[in-house]
Amino acid sequence: MLNANRLPTADGVTRAAEKIAAILPPTPLLPVEIGDARCWVKAENLQPIGAFKIRGGWHRLSDLTAEEKARGVIAVSSGNHAQGVAWAARRLGIAATIVMPRDAPQVKLNATRALGAEIVLYDRPGEDRDEVAAKLQAKSGAVLVHAFADPWVIEGQGSAGVEIAQQLGRQPSAIIACCGGGGLAAGLSLACPDARITPVEPAGWDMVGQALRAGEVVRAGEDAPKTICDALQPVATAPINLGVLTGRSEPGVTVTDDEVREAQRFAFSKLQLVVEPGGAAALAAALSGKVPLDADTVIMLTGGNTDAASFARTIDK
Amino acid sequence: MLNANRLPTADGVTRAAEKIAAILPPTPLLPVEIGDARCWVKAENLQPIGAFKIRGGWHRLSDLTAEEKARGVIAVSSGNHAQGVAWAARRLGIAATIVMPRDAPQVKLNATRALGAEIVLYDRPGEDRDEVAAKLQAKSGAVLVHAFADPWVIEGQGSAGVEIAQQLGRQPSAIIACCGGGGLAAGLSLACPDARITPVEPAGWDMVGQALRAGEVVRAGEDAPKTICDALQPVATAPINLGVLTGRSEPGVTVTDDEVREAQRFAFSKLQLVVEPGGAAALAAALSGKVPLDADTVIMLTGGNTDAASFARTIDK
Repeated sequence: MLNANRLPTADGVTRAAEKIAAILPPTPLLPVEIGDARCWVKAENLQPIGAFKIRGGWHRLSDLTAEEKARGVIAVSSGNHAQGVAWAARRLGIAATIVMPRDAPQVKLNATRALGAEIVLYDRPGEDRDEVAAKLQAKSGAVLVHAFADPWVIEGQGSAGVEIAQQLGRQPSAIIACCGGGGLAAGLSLACPDARITPVEPAGWDMVGQALRAGEVVRAGEDAPKTICDALQPVATAPINLGVLTGRSEPGVTVTDDEVREAQRFAFSKLQLVVEPGGAAALAAALSGKVPLDADTVIMLTGGNTDAASFARTIDK
Repeated sequence: MLNANRLPTADGVTRAAEKIAAILPPTPLLPVEIGDARCWVKAENLQPIGAFKIRGGWHRLSDLTAEEKARGVIAVSSGNHAQGVAWAARRLGIAATIVMPRDAPQVKLNATRALGAEIVLYDRPGEDRDEVAAKLQAKSGAVLVHAFADPWVIEGQGSAGVEIAQQLGRQPSAIIACCGGGGLAAGLSLACPDARITPVEPAGWDMVGQALRAGEVVRAGEDAPKTICDALQPVATAPINLGVLTGRSEPGVTVTDDEVREAQRFAFSKLQLVVEPGGAAALAAALSGKVPLDADTVIMLTGGNTDAASFARTIDK
């Protein structure tokens, strides 16, 4: 059995990038003009599952032992990690059970089911999703694949940074990254040691920013506001993510729902890309002038799984 | 002065591809699953102007003599060729006048104006756009850059085929291409001599298909039906395009508005890409089973410039 308590490493990111390059083409690094600045977007929304989470899912599941594979996997996710794990599980012939909030976007529920995973629903305010998962795990003995508090998942997400450096031909000066639990930001920190990493979180859900300021994990309050960024609502970051990010990342910035919608409209009309709210947070920070931009700055577009009706409302305001 | 009556050549396509590679990164070639088939889409909608027309515009304008550049250029276009010419003109410091139909999508009018071109509007049923352009040209002496009946434009569009072969590592077996006047299809025929080229046209606007069957240029009737594919409504193809395509291309297939909308929805939900109606015609043909698909088949997504309101209506049916 593999040790999920080990720390993620830069070597691990390199190995993850090699494994991922063997099965997935790099996602495009596309030029973008924002005001007078010219920089780059990394279009992770163009991954086969429509989100970067395929990286961590593949690195984790493909490293499981035969015995672990036979037990199956469990994941908890609003939808993108769900699809990443389900995609990898299908390809490896592993049974996957995914615990998803009842209010997850319908496209994410449908897509996860279409990948052959079993879905268990919970109610977002009220039920503790980790308890639901723990009960299932106790019964089945399956391996829990955490959405961000896992060394393989962090290394896997970091492989996007390896691709960026290859595509640019040098280390980026800065990466602006949408941030939920901090798996991507931590992975990018390991992949691109010279880059400034800026995590961008929804206003009121800046659990990584608050943790970096406090020096310890902070839990979201019961009164945390609503956000349209369904993919960026962790109850808290985790010590493994905070450990990597401490000293490497500023607390970052937060964005409002309106700024996120504006970023979705920009991606639609200027980039011809479909980006979901949580996938547009980093672009929102760039467009609203909250983060400096230079020619070697990369903005992560982390996902594009969004219901047609809500996307239609957003672009046709 | 350059000879616009010369024939386009494969060497010209190679030279166009080199010129374009020097200023524009290749557009992504993305894997796609259609039913049981796995093939590729070439995402030309991700060009800086949101359409492949930047290729022909750049190859043509950058080859103008200094004397021609000083006279300025004129183009006639519903919007994508307009932007291609305007983009190249701005970069080269050339004055551009674009004749556009009054019913062109507002985003295309706005984007062309934003690139610094002067816009002259005409009424699509009623006024003859070529007459409007000829009058302007007689007055100003500017160089007319035809949207498809031009050897540079054909060679420029063909550069997409050079990129495809480089990205695949071999010649594609087949390319399914959205088709208006036949500039892209002719260019791809020269670029990829071993590939089967299938032009896809809107039902009732198959001026290339009709010309290939008749062995001569056929003009659209006054009673040609409405189509949502604003980019694919040529009054007729031209001898230069027909000459290249004859013997190289089957007449191809036609698609209905409903099939095009279904393709736009597929691109939105499965590929996270914004594709305009005319840019989705080839995908529509692939999805509706009208064209065989294999692992080396490439489907051109030629443009993504669409008004938010109509795109919202299409995806949220």
